[in-house]
Amino acid sequence: MPYEIKGLNEECGVFGVFGTPEASRMTYFGLHSLQHRGQEGAGIVSCDGQHLLQFRNRGLLSEVFANRRDLDHLVGTMAIGHVRYGTSGNNTLANVQPFLFHFHDGDVALAHNGNLTNASSLKKQLEDEGAIFQSTSDTEILIHLIRKNQQLNFIDALKKSLNQVHGGFAFLLLRRDCLIAALDPNGFRPLSIGQLDNGAYVVASETCAFDMIGARFVRDILPGELIIIDHDGLHIDHYTDQTQLSICSMEYIYFSRPDSIIHGVTVHNARKKMGRLLARQAPVPADVDMVIGVPNSSLSAASGYAEESNLPYEMGLIKNQYIARTFIQPTQELRERGVKMKLSAVRGVVEGKKVAIIDDSIVRGTTSKQIVRLLKEAGAKEVHMRIASPPLRFPCFYGIDISTRSELMAANYTVSEMCSIIGADSLEFLSIPNLIKAISVPDAGDNPNGGLCVAYFDGQYPTPLYDYEAGYLKSLQKQKAREVVH
Amino acid sequence: MPYEIKGLNEECGVFGVFGTPEASRMTYFGLHSLQHRGQEGAGIVSCDGQHLLQFRNRGLLSEVFANRRDLDHLVGTMAIGHVRYGTSGNNTLANVQPFLFHFHDGDVALAHNGNLTNASSLKKQLEDEGAIFQSTSDTEILIHLIRKNQQLNFIDALKKSLNQVHGGFAFLLLRRDCLIAALDPNGFRPLSIGQLDNGAYVVASETCAFDMIGARFVRDILPGELIIIDHDGLHIDHYTDQTQLSICSMEYIYFSRPDSIIHGVTVHNARKKMGRLLARQAPVPADVDMVIGVPNSSLSAASGYAEESNLPYEMGLIKNQYIARTFIQPTQELRERGVKMKLSAVRGVVEGKKVAIIDDSIVRGTTSKQIVRLLKEAGAKEVHMRIASPPLRFPCFYGIDISTRSELMAANYTVSEMCSIIGADSLEFLSIPNLIKAISVPDAGDNPNGGLCVAYFDGQYPTPLYDYEAGYLKSLQKQKAREVVH
Amino acid sequence: MPYEIKGLNEECGVFGVFGTPEASRMTYFGLHSLQHRGQEGAGIVSCDGQHLLQFRNRGLLSEVFANRRDLDHLVGTMAIGHVRYGTSGNNTLANVQPFLFHFHDGDVALAHNGNLTNASSLKKQLEDEGAIFQSTSDTEILIHLIRKNQQLNFIDALKKSLNQVHGGFAFLLLRRDCLIAALDPNGFRPLSIGQLDNGAYVVASETCAFDMIGARFVRDILPGELIIIDHDGLHIDHYTDQTQLSICSMEYIYFSRPDSIIHGVTVHNARKKMGRLLARQAPVPADVDMVIGVPNSSLSAASGYAEESNLPYEMGLIKNQYIARTFIQPTQELRERGVKMKLSAVRGVVEGKKVAIIDDSIVRGTTSKQIVRLLKEAGAKEVHMRIASPPLRFPCFYGIDISTRSELMAANYTVSEMCSIIGADSLEFLSIPNLIKAISVPDAGDNPNGGLCVAYFDGQYPTPLYDYEAGYLKSLQKQKAREVVH
Amino acid sequence: MPYEIKGLNEECGVFGVFGTPEASRMTYFGLHSLQHRGQEGAGIVSCDGQHLLQFRNRGLLSEVFANRRDLDHLVGTMAIGHVRYGTSGNNTLANVQPFLFHFHDGDVALAHNGNLTNASSLKKQLEDEGAIFQSTSDTEILIHLIRKNQQLNFIDALKKSLNQVHGGFAFLLLRRDCLIAALDPNGFRPLSIGQLDNGAYVVASETCAFDMIGARFVRDILPGELIIIDHDGLHIDHYTDQTQLSICSMEYIYFSRPDSIIHGVTVHNARKKMGRLLARQAPVPADVDMVIGVPNSSLSAASGYAEESNLPYEMGLIKNQYIARTFIQPTQELRERGVKMKLSAVRGVVEGKKVAIIDDSIVRGTTSKQIVRLLKEAGAKEVHMRIASPPLRFPCFYGIDISTRSELMAANYTVSEMCSIIGADSLEFLSIPNLIKAISVPDAGDNPNGGLCVAYFDGQYPTPLYDYEAGYLKSLQKQKAREVVH
Repeated sequence: MPYEIKGLNEECGVFGVFGTPEASRMTYFGLHSLQHRGQEGAGIVSCDGQHLLQFRNRGLLSEVFANRRDLDHLVGTMAIGHVRYGTSGNNTLANVQPFLFHFHDGDVALAHNGNLTNASSLKKQLEDEGAIFQSTSDTEILIHLIRKNQQLNFIDALKKSLNQVHGGFAFLLLRRDCLIAALDPNGFRPLSIGQLDNGAYVVASETCAFDMIGARFVRDILPGELIIIDHDGLHIDHYTDQTQLSICSMEYIYFSRPDSIIHGVTVHNARKKMGRLLARQAPVPADVDMVIGVPNSSLSAASGYAEESNLPYEMGLIKNQYIARTFIQPTQELRERGVKMKLSAVRGVVEGKKVAIIDDSIVRGTTSKQIVRLLKEAGAKEVHMRIASPPLRFPCFYGIDISTRSELMAANYTVSEMCSIIGADSLEFLSIPNLIKAISVPDAGDNPNGGLCVAYFDGQYPTPLYDYEAGYLKSLQKQKAREVVH
Repeated sequence: MPYEIKGLNEECGVFGVFGTPEASRMTYFGLHSLQHRGQEGAGIVSCDGQHLLQFRNRGLLSEVFANRRDLDHLVGTMAIGHVRYGTSGNNTLANVQPFLFHFHDGDVALAHNGNLTNASSLKKQLEDEGAIFQSTSDTEILIHLIRKNQQLNFIDALKKSLNQVHGGFAFLLLRRDCLIAALDPNGFRPLSIGQLDNGAYVVASETCAFDMIGARFVRDILPGELIIIDHDGLHIDHYTDQTQLSICSMEYIYFSRPDSIIHGVTVHNARKKMGRLLARQAPVPADVDMVIGVPNSSLSAASGYAEESNLPYEMGLIKNQYIARTFIQPTQELRERGVKMKLSAVRGVVEGKKVAIIDDSIVRGTTSKQIVRLLKEAGAKEVHMRIASPPLRFPCFYGIDISTRSELMAANYTVSEMCSIIGADSLEFLSIPNLIKAISVPDAGDNPNGGLCVAYFDGQYPTPLYDYEAGYLKSLQKQKAREVVH
Repeated sequence: MPYEIKGLNEECGVFGVFGTPEASRMTYFGLHSLQHRGQEGAGIVSCDGQHLLQFRNRGLLSEVFANRRDLDHLVGTMAIGHVRYGTSGNNTLANVQPFLFHFHDGDVALAHNGNLTNASSLKKQLEDEGAIFQSTSDTEILIHLIRKNQQLNFIDALKKSLNQVHGGFAFLLLRRDCLIAALDPNGFRPLSIGQLDNGAYVVASETCAFDMIGARFVRDILPGELIIIDHDGLHIDHYTDQTQLSICSMEYIYFSRPDSIIHGVTVHNARKKMGRLLARQAPVPADVDMVIGVPNSSLSAASGYAEESNLPYEMGLIKNQYIARTFIQPTQELRERGVKMKLSAVRGVVEGKKVAIIDDSIVRGTTSKQIVRLLKEAGAKEVHMRIASPPLRFPCFYGIDISTRSELMAANYTVSEMCSIIGADSLEFLSIPNLIKAISVPDAGDNPNGGLCVAYFDGQYPTPLYDYEAGYLKSLQKQKAREVVH
Repeated sequence: MPYEIKGLNEECGVFGVFGTPEASRMTYFGLHSLQHRGQEGAGIVSCDGQHLLQFRNRGLLSEVFANRRDLDHLVGTMAIGHVRYGTSGNNTLANVQPFLFHFHDGDVALAHNGNLTNASSLKKQLEDEGAIFQSTSDTEILIHLIRKNQQLNFIDALKKSLNQVHGGFAFLLLRRDCLIAALDPNGFRPLSIGQLDNGAYVVASETCAFDMIGARFVRDILPGELIIIDHDGLHIDHYTDQTQLSICSMEYIYFSRPDSIIHGVTVHNARKKMGRLLARQAPVPADVDMVIGVPNSSLSAASGYAEESNLPYEMGLIKNQYIARTFIQPTQELRERGVKMKLSAVRGVVEGKKVAIIDDSIVRGTTSKQIVRLLKEAGAKEVHMRIASPPLRFPCFYGIDISTRSELMAANYTVSEMCSIIGADSLEFLSIPNLIKAISVPDAGDNPNGGLCVAYFDGQYPTPLYDYEAGYLKSLQKQKAREVVH
């Protein structure tokens, strides 16, 4: 059921290193700084020059490697790793990456961030030819395609296979003598190259991983590129010329860490500028007392909004930092009594005040509604909500997990209806042009939308949708039908 | 070895509730919001009206109650709970609270936040009389004292015992028919009363626990008070008249959650004002580009400092939110390569800039040194450090765990020496009068220091030190001897 | 509720060693061979010459020490250990032994096999004097008594305390300079001394522990003795002269391992002789085809019966050796379909045959009934049951856990009624004189019953029952009342 | 490295059931009685009529299903299960069976007991054609072969595939509408059909599983048969006519449970007769005092030997029943001190006696040597060893794991040399003809060796060895070379 995706989640983070002692430990720390990209599985494959060694499991990285020996066993000077977000249906061990395949002519490991748009049809075709899949993941398709082209050398077989898969992908492959990275022709997902003091190259989904391990940023991997790192150094190749940068704008808005730099833009700075432009585009009434950010992802935008508006920036909401891993949930009884787990309003700050609350986005609207209620219960007289991105109205097919249209609040209601449902005193969103202006990718050239993918906001997908096309069109029709009825 | 304490840690948090269904689950959520006060052990004792039921273990609350059934077994309409910080030496299961004692005339449970200054001598005396202690904790002493006075009724025996123990304490006791709370004569530790919609009373170390569970704040417990909650309601009693408020100023500076209200003051507001007063007292040079806070505890002070200085408030440091529970540490090799786990500087923000960095306090100075290095390596041209509290120069004996004098940087160096060691371009601290002014406890009356304990800053302890006196004086002499040598 | 005990279980096994490297590992193996005496908890306390170190937990020894480091931490040249059987009510960690008590004048560890008959009254009296118990175990009483006599030296205080407790007990104590063993005045429980090649002494509940660790048997500890092992060697003392050997006959019949030697008698040999005497006393019909033993405890008796009867000894019942630790139980549905977990009859052996089945004892009769049914369903034409001990009609108060009288089949039915309920074609028990003759304790002297306790068979207890007296008499009366009604 | 196998272990046990409620729980109990066939992994796949559901893990069955919910999730009325023995190299989760394969045209699960002799060459050939294997197990080959024949219907594709694999195999397959069982053309491995009261059919490696779950034995599956169980009942088909029964004689000698019936012969009875024939063929001196069996597998043969010799059958060796799962091993130091974990001699039985010790087989001879030493150290004057099977001189390639020839004691020494190495006073083995006579398979017809495989004794393999041929011949030559040298 490729179209039935839920929530708002990154699909994954990848990290690789070639040519340094303690490669797996280096990979552990690299992945550690990418943990926000996926918390439901993690794994590392290292290579001792001969064999590939794997350890992976479900859970946070620190849970997966709770026993130090499991990491110590991954000896060797090269490694790739993966942190995974998994939807409930496919969150089995078999789907935790990197995948490791043993062949009589050499092992191959594979890690992937992204989503293939023609996975279903490729999978069916391969199965009809006798292929047996061990996971329900898209990722495995690539290795089957490569093995179907055994008559070619590995790199040629890989290039041919990369031209057969479509969608958003950032692949890392490890063989006993090289580390390979490949990015899709639109560069939907971020992927960068860094270098350690000792000359060893690293590859990571975000540059924050380089800071963590003391590596220097070298360059972003560009759409359509194939990067090969071996004992001779770094080789930049490409498998296609048909490329056009469409880096996912949600990486800047929500997913990436504020200290990461994507295509030359520091994420915190982009967010702060979103806040500033939002303040100019959609100011709050003059008698508003303060600006509050929804922790943690909206704090940059909120401080930008506060400074541009010349209003105090206050901590009016607290996020419980121990929430992530509790197994105990409030019963209905306790929920009705007011027990809340995730966010608290700070009465001593908001009581009797008119507040502007800045959030990065609205998905289903349930959290926004809860935030307004929390603030009002804590005594806020007025709550003006400002969203530092445009309304989310369409799904993503390139690797982030946005609710189906039927669940996206902005796909079903006008802004004014949303404001009323949420219970805010006013509600406004950043415009698409202001979003593009806030990010301002320097090397966008003449790529549409300033080199950004904004399809979840305007429904204009930069590629064909392949297996998703039919389901997507059907859902649009359903919705139109609903709208007609209303 | 009572004098050998290390680090900067809160000793504990307590929570109790009387007279509501699902008392233990309510207690779980109350403790959840107090988790920052202690992460090394947690427990709950409930009462079904007849028997007291206990579950406790080492670890975070969510780890202790990883199995929902362990919580479900704690049936009944009253409960007390505890989260514990434990020093390595005494971090055994036997020391995890609440303690539960079975007697042929009824069970008693006991939870404690604080530190007794005459624990050693009381313990020796009790042992000589045949007492057998099952933990190495101070807390257990109270129950032995009570049992020594069996000829009195329970409340009278408790009052007599509370007059025999000295130091800082906030006790909760649970019996099958009542919940009892007692606070030391100086009120060193915070302890407040709240009430649920259904009339049930709750007691907690911080008011943020009331917000979590939907309770209304009623009043703070005052020094020397004994609160008894039973089926007839709330009874306010006291066991001594010799009281004088000296609430721990570090609760406002560092320990408590920003949304908690202690003696009428919201912690975030106090911190923001510390930042504002610090900006007036110790401004940065006019060409400084931005203000940065050390996450998370210094963010309130930093935004106050930024607003008062009219400087942008930026996210120049990132705290890794997944750090808490990793078992894998960087090797020396990797540390030298620059692998860092806890904090990262945001190059895209600080590169080429002059920055003011605001921290809440300096203990050993190692973190400060590391922060300056991180910022400079990320390209900051100048780093001006401002500390939103006075220099920590003396230990605490009332329940927080500050390093011994030999480890406290400010006990051994002048501010100018500290600046040089840390590598900052300038360093200044908030003055004691400004600290007192920033907090401004409303009901301090004529209590010295505005009702605050500031002994870690000025060495003037508001009570005799009992068992710690000799060791403390000896350490002062040693230090003087060292100073003479230098 | 001291009188409400259930099942047929040994209470414990103890082991101690003084003066050898790797004392805790030696203790681990010693306890390993005593695992049959208790499977619900295990622990070891070692001494490094200064401090006592403890590790204990619920579960099998191998589960408790699943992590080798937990054993490695128990350094030192002396140690005591314990395996525990626990009834459901008191099977908490707090009750797992050895207990370890820290005092300012030195630590003491304590392990115990047995049951005190005046525990309740002593406990009440001590609590009234201010004592606080941390476990619900009888064992802890001894240390409280010792501490009450602090004015005496330790050995004198211990001797005085041993005269205050009554019942069956084998105590091991460890201090930093000595290992102490004490046996009750009747020697109800077995306890022996061995010696390693390097001269170090060991003490254990059964001699099979000596064979396990390569130690030589030295002597049994005698009733009323106090054995002190320190750096000067072995000292034999006693705390009372009022002694009379009444070693528990169930140790020979059921509990002890067949290779253990108790008071000079090898358990297998005693059991084989019980079988031989039973064959003479209660032969089976001449046309019986074979003798079958109930595995595992009845195999010795069965082979004795077979040889004396000149009948083939066959494996007609199989015990599932993996049964111990399954968490999955058959549902009622499956039970009715015939799913069985514990024992299987061997159809290929018994089909169409007349069999003699030898068991060691009958407690509630449910197993016996099941065995007969199994054999008949597998095609046995006749099943003649012979029990190699007398009918169990009375409870034990000295350390084994026999069902209350209301559950003991032989306390409520005649042998002929039992035979009919069980469904056997005939049923006979070994007589008390034949039991005594089969065991023939060599050094029994003029002790009644050949130095054995046979009170569960004849109700003649060799000591007063103290706290159990009233409950026991009441239960006898109830039963008589029932008998009158019938 | 197919030829490098170690130890003496069964490869696996399989169980399947079709058409009964609680099929997975039934399978659990069936597997429970097959646990002796493999202790290193277990799994169950059930079918709810639509989807196949899997749970499997490393460890004992009771460890794998430690959490009852994992079993409860396996809903449906049909299931297959597997217990696995795994050599260290391949003991990963990926190799734990049953395997489950998801295809767009329906799921298939697969469980296997046996060893394929042409696995390596088939695997290489399939990989060259693009196949990707997820395990290192032979078993997976069958499903790849089936998928290569997708143009045929499933049963025809399966039949074709079964003709392509060679060696010893007992396969169970589950699809959403049927359970399939297939046995190799020599019937090396046992596999039987049973039936529950409600008409549902079960299939199991040994009939003891039928007794466990209350099923009635129906018939053995015969060489070359393909059994299909679906909603219409039981269908007996076959995939080849080229069959010849060669049931593994080690199943009778050592592997199978004594209560299992294989091709009409109860294992205990066969073993007892081996003991009887051994007593006639190789009697002990007239002054021998007793017969002792090595527990547990030799007890049947020992009682047969004792009865035929008219000697007492004694328990002279004890096996520690808690040994299986200890993680703590004796250090060299302790081993030298005599610490032993597995077997103990019973001093009170053997001291001063001349004994006959009966064992089922000798593999490397180390255990035999240890047994003789144990008995002599316990005081036995003479030890006469009798082995109830012929000398093991050749490896098995059909599913049991016998040491390589270089490790097999009887492949390298004469019986008289073995006696001297082991330290026994005499040593004799059962002859091959007497082994065949003891078992006497009723339906062997004119199959050679009475329908038994005795290749490990005489080197006459009933089939070609395929991939093993070259390695095996080389090892024979090496050994001959060694023999020439000596």
